[in-house]
Order: sequence, then C-alpha cells, then structure tokens
Amino acid sequence: MNNPLINTLQERRQKLAQLIDIPAILWSGKALSRNFRANHYPFRASSHFLYFAGLPLENVAIYLENGQLDLFMDNPSPDSILWHGEMPTRDNIAIQIGANNAYPLKELVQKTQDAATIPVQDINTYQQQYETLKRPLILNNFSIDITLAKAIILLRLTHDQSALEEIKKAINVSIKAHKTGIKATKTAKIEAEIRGAMEGYILSKNMTCAYNSIVTTHGETLHNEKYEHYLQAGDLLLADVGAETPLGWASDITRTWPVSGKFSATQRDIYDIVLAAHDHCIEKIKPGKEYRNIHLLAAQIIVEGLVDLGILKGNVNDLVEKDAHALFFPHGIGHLLGLDVHDMEDLGDLAGYEEGRTRSDRFGLGYLRLDRPLRTGMVVTIEPGFYQVPAILEDLNFREKYHNDVNWQKLEQFSDVRGIRIEDDVLVTKKGAEILTKDLPTKASEIEALY
Amino acid sequence: MNNPLINTLQERRQKLAQLIDIPAILWSGKALSRNFRANHYPFRASSHFLYFAGLPLENVAIYLENGQLDLFMDNPSPDSILWHGEMPTRDNIAIQIGANNAYPLKELVQKTQDAATIPVQDINTYQQQYETLKRPLILNNFSIDITLAKAIILLRLTHDQSALEEIKKAINVSIKAHKTGIKATKTAKIEAEIRGAMEGYILSKNMTCAYNSIVTTHGETLHNEKYEHYLQAGDLLLADVGAETPLGWASDITRTWPVSGKFSATQRDIYDIVLAAHDHCIEKIKPGKEYRNIHLLAAQIIVEGLVDLGILKGNVNDLVEKDAHALFFPHGIGHLLGLDVHDMEDLGDLAGYEEGRTRSDRFGLGYLRLDRPLRTGMVVTIEPGFYQVPAILEDLNFREKYHNDVNWQKLEQFSDVRGIRIEDDVLVTKKGAEILTKDLPTKASEIEALY
Repeated sequence: MNNPLINTLQERRQKLAQLIDIPAILWSGKALSRNFRANHYPFRASSHFLYFAGLPLENVAIYLENGQLDLFMDNPSPDSILWHGEMPTRDNIAIQIGANNAYPLKELVQKTQDAATIPVQDINTYQQQYETLKRPLILNNFSIDITLAKAIILLRLTHDQSALEEIKKAINVSIKAHKTGIKATKTAKIEAEIRGAMEGYILSKNMTCAYNSIVTTHGETLHNEKYEHYLQAGDLLLADVGAETPLGWASDITRTWPVSGKFSATQRDIYDIVLAAHDHCIEKIKPGKEYRNIHLLAAQIIVEGLVDLGILKGNVNDLVEKDAHALFFPHGIGHLLGLDVHDMEDLGDLAGYEEGRTRSDRFGLGYLRLDRPLRTGMVVTIEPGFYQVPAILEDLNFREKYHNDVNWQKLEQFSDVRGIRIEDDVLVTKKGAEILTKDLPTKASEIEALY
Repeated sequence: MNNPLINTLQERRQKLAQLIDIPAILWSGKALSRNFRANHYPFRASSHFLYFAGLPLENVAIYLENGQLDLFMDNPSPDSILWHGEMPTRDNIAIQIGANNAYPLKELVQKTQDAATIPVQDINTYQQQYETLKRPLILNNFSIDITLAKAIILLRLTHDQSALEEIKKAINVSIKAHKTGIKATKTAKIEAEIRGAMEGYILSKNMTCAYNSIVTTHGETLHNEKYEHYLQAGDLLLADVGAETPLGWASDITRTWPVSGKFSATQRDIYDIVLAAHDHCIEKIKPGKEYRNIHLLAAQIIVEGLVDLGILKGNVNDLVEKDAHALFFPHGIGHLLGLDVHDMEDLGDLAGYEEGRTRSDRFGLGYLRLDRPLRTGMVVTIEPGFYQVPAILEDLNFREKYHNDVNWQKLEQFSDVRGIRIEDDVLVTKKGAEILTKDLPTKASEIEALY
C-alpha cells in the first residue's frame, strides 16, 4: 500500500466521502467504433472515473462509498487474451488501484440503490447507466446526480500533487513538440508537415493528443482542423497542440510563429500586444482574483495596444465597455485544465461558473468558459489572441456598430496578421502564479531564435 | 460536369440503379465525443455514404433513386462559420458531387417511403435513421435493407479506376511510413518512437491512419495497441501501419524487421518461411481462384517450412488437415481492402462470404475473413504470419492434441521469433495479381538494407 498512485486515489475517495454521504457509481465507458465495429477509435476512459480509479480501464465501473472503492470488472476472456495478449485480471487491477472489494460487472446491479452517477459521453455506456440504475440521469435541481457532480467538481477544481505531476509530464512533451514544430517549419511546404512533426513527437513519447490539433496559417479560423494550406513566406503559423499522458491528464499550449522565421513589422506590432495581454494577465493571477477580471484585463490591454497602433480610436474603457476588443479577440481568456483540456466541460458550465452565475449576453464576455474566483491549486490557461475573422469584420451590423471605433484603412495595413494566439498553462499558487509552460518562450525574438 | 470525381460518382449511382429499383437513403454520420461534447474524435463518414457521395461530409444524407442523387444537408450556421471558417454551402456541395437536387435536412422525411438504408456505426445517427424511417433497420432475410446491402456489396467488391487511384495514394504514403519506421529503429529506445515516426509521416502527408497501428516487439499479441516496450537488440519489430486518404480510402501493410538491423539465423529461417507463403499465395491469385484455397496454400507452405526446420513432425497434408498450422498462424490469410481496411465488415460476413457460406468451425479456418472466388478488380491483403502465442502454445488441450506433431524442444531454439507477419495489398487483374505495395521490399536482405 506504499504505492503513490494508490495513496492519491485513496485520498481522493476520502475527500469525496467528506463532501457527500450518498454512494456513487462511475462508469469508465467503452471504445467507440469508427467505420466498423472492430475498427475503433482509441479508447478514452471517462475523466471522473480516471480521477478516482486512476487507470484507463475499458468497460469497468467503480462504486464509491465512505471512502471505499469496490471494483466491478470482468476478467479478460480467453478469446481476448488470444488477440490482445495477457491482460491484468480483476484481482490484479484491484491491487493496482487499491480497491477494497472486486466483483464481476454483473453484480453491480445489487449496489444501485440510491447511488448517484455522472453520465458518460458514449451513448452505449450511457444506456447501460440508466438501465442499471433504472432511472433517468438528471443533472439539474436537487437530483443526487447533481449533488455528486458538485462534490466532484469541488475536488477536481484544484489539483493534488499527483495531478500536477501528470500535467507537468504532458506539458514537457508539448513544449518539445512545439519546438519540433518550429524547426520543422523551415522545410515544410504544407501545414500538415508541421502537424505531423508535432504529433509524431507526442506519439513517440507514448502520449496522445488531448484534443484535435490546430496547426494553421489561417489562425482566424478559430477551430480549424484542416492542415492542407500551403505555407507562404509571409504567413504566420498558429499551433495549438497539447499532449495527454497515458493516465489521461492534459496540457494545452499555443504558439504563433512566422513561416519565414522572421516576424514582419506589422506582425510583430500585433504579436507584442497579444504578449503584453498575456504577461499582464498572468501577473494578476492569485487566489481570490476573479478570472472574469483577468479576461477583461486582457480586453483592455488589447484595446490599448490597438489604439496605440491607430487601429482602434477613442477612449480605452469606453471601447472595452462596448466590446470593441471582441472584434479581434472574440473568445475567452482561457479555461480550467486537468483531466480534460476544458476541464469538466462534460458538465456544461457547472464547473466553469461559480454557483448562481451564468454566461453573459455580451459579445465580449459570452464565450468566457470560466467565471470563478481563482483558488490555490487551480490550473488555468491564459490565451489572449488577435484575429481578423471575416465573419466578424465583414458583418454589416458590426461594421455599423463599430464604424467610428475602427480605422478600417489602418487595419488594412495589418492584412498579414490573420491570427495570433499565445497560450500558457498556469498554476494558481499561494504566492500568485506559476507558469507551468515557462520553458517554452513567448517573446517574439525568442521564438525567432528557436527556428 | 467534366470533373472526374463527379463522373465516377455518377457511374456508381447508375450501376446501383441497374441492380435495384428501390430508393436508398445513406447517412454520413456525426463526429463522436471523446471526453466532452466539443472534444470529438476526428470525424469519419460512413463508407457506404462515401462510395456514392465522395466527400467526408458530416451530418448529411443522400437519397439515391434511378441513378439520381438528392442531397439533404443544412447550410453552415453563422456560429459555425465564426468558429470553423467559411464552409461550402449545400449548393456548393451539390455541384461538387454532382447532385441532381439539394434540400435542407429536415425535408428528408418526405422521401422516406419504401426507402432502404444501411445502419451507420454511431448510435446517435443510427437512432436518427430509424426515427426518420419510422421502422427498425433489418439486415436479415428479405428486408429491403439487405437487398440494398447486397447490391452495394456487389459494387464495392471490385474497384473502379478512381477507387484504385485513391488506394494507391494511401499505399504510397504507407510505404514511405514503413521506410521511415525502419530507419527510426536505429536510434529508437521504445516502440512508441517508431510509431511516432511512422504516424508522423502519414499525418505530414495530410492523411490519417486507416486503423490503430500495431508497432510492437511482441507481434505474438495479434491486436497489440500498446507501444511501451523497450527495444532489445535481439527483438523483431512488427509494424502493421496503413494510411487512409482524406476521401476515406485505406491501405494496410505489415513488415517485420530486426531491431538490430540484422535478422538472427533463427529469425531468418522463420522469416523465409513466411515470405515463401506470401510469395506463393500471391502467385496463385487470379480471377476465379477460391480465396479460401489461397489461405490453405499458406497453411501448407508454413507447415512444409516448419517440418523442414524440425519444428513440426509428420506428413504435411495431414498436419494441415488437423490444423497444426494454426498453432503458429492462427488468423486468416487476409481480407478485402477498400474504403474500410476490412472492407464492408460493418455488414458482418455479408461482404466477405459468398452467399450460402458461413464461417468454418475449424481452428485453422474460422478466422478467415474472406471466402469467395476472386474477381478482377478486387483488392485483397495477403498476410501470412508466424507467432508464438502463449495462449495457444501453453494451452493444455492444444499441447495434448498436437503432442506428437510438434518438436517442443526444437521450438525452444526459436524463442527469439515471437511474431512475424508480411502483408501486402494485391489487386486481382485479368492476368493474375498486381502487388500494389511492391515498392516496399519483402526479402530479409532488402529489409536489412533499408535500415
């Protein structure tokens, strides 16, 4: 029992028991088929399951009560051993994760009374959940499921030492993947080559990607998942790529670098504004600080910079007040990071938003994924950006609303800046902020030096 | 209309109309969530949809009747354009794929009467299918769905020129990925590094993997999807890795090479037996040849070789008759290849098995995925192997049944041969066989030269 994983898992189970006295059943889920049953996507266990069970086990359930864990799992079939090799038995796994008891999966039905659960993503297991519990799974009002969800959120909002170690492992691989990507740009002809170099590096470290990579010269397409553009000497390349450890912990890093190795003067002007927002936001991070205000600080610094460049006109505060920043920075300053890259987003805004708060209707605030006071042990991303999104800048309503706030002619001089984002992963500490991704430089000159 | 993709698609639709006179609706499917809704697995459209619609469109349906295609698709929402960039509209897509008409998705309900369909893999779309058609989807007896399935199988069993061009594109990338993998072995310390080099290459060519790669020093674990073993100088590395083109066409190649760059004498002895089986099987490929007999030929050649080495004892035909080959070669000689790596395996054995045939109960035949006479235009894999699977060789029933057929002491001398497979993709032509993967050598000395 002197295994650090077991100690961590047992502490988490004890902490859950201190928060709620209802039993909980968490399912791990099953692999999903791609084009035919045997050709499946790589299995990803439910994050809530991973938090308490530790290992990415397929088709397993755990029963948590009073700090104890009962494992419900079937032993591998002979046919499975033939095709997949010798695999750990239920009893092996029970020892590895410090289970108190271990049973075949079919015995789970005997433990369902009054048990709460969290719905998983794959609909096959979801059906199994409500068929086993014989009731709908409800995440609103005063259901036991929401009571469980809120307790788990409270635990997962701040990270223990084991979690931080895993996140740091993922981050270290992501940092090297980004450096590999910058170097690969020298000879690459299409975006896919840079993606291949970065993801190839992540795979070579026996990790996977925490999310679909964005590797594009069209950073203004915020969720771009195509990699087919040819690289032009004057382009910026935006890479949002993060590794995930085998135990499921995520990292999330974005850098933007010039295809030629040198920022143009206009690119550098805007880059430095985004970097200033990034640096100032991280400086302000400390326990108790409202994350929403970090977001608004980024908005203010971006507006200040754009006023200085002559792209925006007028009073900085007034411009932020009327969401002029969102013309160029239409997303939130960041989000929680943990087992999920948007941690616990499977629960909607329950984790991201402090109880009683909801998403704003404001153009410049509605996309904020986190609206809580920061706490020691949280890991958040800080990811300001500047984008010229055609769907925004060519929108007639926006053109009219911001007609006098934007110097549209001046903006045309910055046409070689389609999208810039700088994203780091930051741990909230008692003293302020620890930039977990600090080994990957952010300054324009340092980025150029990595080329 | 002089677009080669459109011509191909229209020919396929015309051919379908010649086979059946019932209308068909094919759904493309939707992306599946990984750990939360917005974090999805890379979308893969249904292969049957791709065959007639050509493009990997998400959440789209096509209605096929009398050689005509009606497209049912919603235009991208403004929010979607904001996040995913400008995307083709329904009318753009209709032109690209040569649709005769194009409607919003909601109008599909007006076309459901008497229409057949093929169930998709993702259960969300599957539910949408039977809710739209207002009936269960049935793939047995005389349902219209099975009539459609059989007609599509008849078309997809043999490939047109466009299909072959796509398969060859995938193969060319896979060949270079394997060469990259062999080279990467020189400096790699764990399996994952070789996988990263191979898959990184595939990604860099803007392709994806047609299936989860097997890259392992434990080739005896037939469906090994872990990459964590350290490489030892005396190990063989088995890599079963194949690229898929952006339009969804697959390739499937396996090579086995020595970690040190040089096969040991025992490894080479067994390798040459597997290669002899591979070469003889390909030689026999021609239209009309029963694929099952190709499998049995592989069994015979493997047994002959093992008798010559003194690992098996007795008469070759008798040994094959009692499935002694399957002790070391417990899978089929190969399968159909096309849009799916096991082509049309979503339909069970409907595609792989000639009407009226079913899987054999024999240990040495039951895993055969294809049991049909070969036809011009089919692409099949030929993938003999030799494995020392503990679950087989340590099985007491097998030890007893084959007690006098195996020289167990002799076998121990070959303990450095855990798993070997050599897999090529072969087109059945009028004249015989064209090895589509021939640019990747198979001879042991040539493999060593690639190191």
